[in-house]
Amino acid sequence: MIEVRRHNAAYCKECFFHVFREQVKRAISQYDMLGTSDRILVAVSGGKDSLALWDVLLELGYDVTGLYLGLGIGAYSTRSGEASKAFAADRGADLIVVDLERDYGYDIPTAGKRGSRSTCAVCGLSKRYVFNRAALEGGYDVVATGHNLDDEAATLLGNTLRWQTEYIARQSPALPAKEGMVKKVKPLFRLSELETAAFAFLRGIDYVVEECPLVGGNTQLRYKDAMNAIEADSPGTKAQFFLGYLDRGLPLFRFEDTAVLAACENCGQPTTGRFCAFCRARAQILGELLTPPDDDDGSVAAEMADEVMPVEIFGGSA
Amino acid sequence: MIEVRRHNAAYCKECFFHVFREQVKRAISQYDMLGTSDRILVAVSGGKDSLALWDVLLELGYDVTGLYLGLGIGAYSTRSGEASKAFAADRGADLIVVDLERDYGYDIPTAGKRGSRSTCAVCGLSKRYVFNRAALEGGYDVVATGHNLDDEAATLLGNTLRWQTEYIARQSPALPAKEGMVKKVKPLFRLSELETAAFAFLRGIDYVVEECPLVGGNTQLRYKDAMNAIEADSPGTKAQFFLGYLDRGLPLFRFEDTAVLAACENCGQPTTGRFCAFCRARAQILGELLTPPDDDDGSVAAEMADEVMPVEIFGGSA
Repeated sequence: MIEVRRHNAAYCKECFFHVFREQVKRAISQYDMLGTSDRILVAVSGGKDSLALWDVLLELGYDVTGLYLGLGIGAYSTRSGEASKAFAADRGADLIVVDLERDYGYDIPTAGKRGSRSTCAVCGLSKRYVFNRAALEGGYDVVATGHNLDDEAATLLGNTLRWQTEYIARQSPALPAKEGMVKKVKPLFRLSELETAAFAFLRGIDYVVEECPLVGGNTQLRYKDAMNAIEADSPGTKAQFFLGYLDRGLPLFRFEDTAVLAACENCGQPTTGRFCAFCRARAQILGELLTPPDDDDGSVAAEMADEVMPVEIFGGSA
Repeated sequence: MIEVRRHNAAYCKECFFHVFREQVKRAISQYDMLGTSDRILVAVSGGKDSLALWDVLLELGYDVTGLYLGLGIGAYSTRSGEASKAFAADRGADLIVVDLERDYGYDIPTAGKRGSRSTCAVCGLSKRYVFNRAALEGGYDVVATGHNLDDEAATLLGNTLRWQTEYIARQSPALPAKEGMVKKVKPLFRLSELETAAFAFLRGIDYVVEECPLVGGNTQLRYKDAMNAIEADSPGTKAQFFLGYLDRGLPLFRFEDTAVLAACENCGQPTTGRFCAFCRARAQILGELLTPPDDDDGSVAAEMADEVMPVEIFGGSA
């Protein structure tokens, strides 16, 4: 029996699967996230959320390929990669593997030590960049990520506590494609972390249970704790907060998304500046200078690579 | 030495008084809250915030009268009334006393048991009503309340978690007068609860330290706990949240305040319905029917008095 306290309901296994998939279908249809002819790239970490998402999308008959990004976080990354590969093999599904160290020359532990960003910030930036680039280069129509209701509520809390209106404006579960940015969707946004865990477990998915070992003290986790404390007293607050935002909040912020994108002079990916945040972060981590084709002495570029608070491509965590 | 962690500063007593008063002056001037010729009514509960506010306004030379509302909450109310009267006597200041039982026929413990609202909700409603009515009837220009930064941040969190856009639109520290509503201001909105407590203590104000005995489990307190947990990890979050709202959030909500007010058919105070929320709550508590002059059988009135979720006059706590 699976209890869903905010719905004041309990389900047997098969009914829970049905309800879970219905919530995903509802999310997809409500935001016109995925079409039957779309080539979908699902970002998989080896954790419960992304593997549950992949599982549901395969069951629903979508054309979906997995994308696993190796972060180089020791045994945690090894197990994450294995879980993703085992799932793909088990379902006969396609999996693309990108490796930060092999393909971009750094891993996350090094990036966290060397760069000016926190480990979680540079990890999120790297993921968003690689997902978008891999999707564009592979000709995919849309990237789907496993963000659940808890993730979205915690991110929204963080964005709201700072009134980061541009980020609030962009926290829709479906962001349309624009200028070098592939469409992004979050089909699990109506489902809580507990629900995705129960679903993955009951579906017999062998996912990585442990948290990333570098995540300690992460702000996002503190926002989750705060939301969980409130949710414990008032079940339904998380859903009310995020779904209420979509219904009544988001429309008020629609003019706040004023970012104008151009191609990064180094990699060609979209950015609000001259070089994208990823290239700037990577240059800083590798101790390299960013030199665009038409700037031989690299002085401006070096200045930008030192910038401490560069503009993020997207708000929220990836 | 008084430490203010979010400002990363420490002050001696006299400097702290100066800084505290400067923050009040800044709030008053930023929102054009009070004029030197205004007749000001300050709502006093006998607690640290309202007595600190009264103290500062007297020191700054404003024409200010206290208003104490007796809630009938046993020994707590007795001590609150005594503290307010002692402060007034000590400063030679004027104090108006209104008593819910004597003047309106009920006390808060009874209201909490009999009505359909929670104790805190009916208490807040009663305060807002009495403050407004007393100010109008006494010819005061403005009501000042002792809401501090912690109060405002917690209220904003609650309003935001529910995306109550009309309430969010009205959480300005200064609400102008309109149609039967006297101007309301919160000159302490830039100061934290710790700061008002330190100020009241150091100024030798004999205030009631204990919390209201009926407040246990109050949602507002849970929001304060959540904010305090986040603040402990990231000092300055509360201030960033509320001041960021004033700066970047509030302007986006300005068209959400769509309430159209008319005179309550029973008492003449402003309301969005036929009878104001106070009269409906009071009728329910006293087991009376609301009968407007032109409605002899009282059927419509009785229906409204039974309404479970009436519209509040203002958002937030009072």
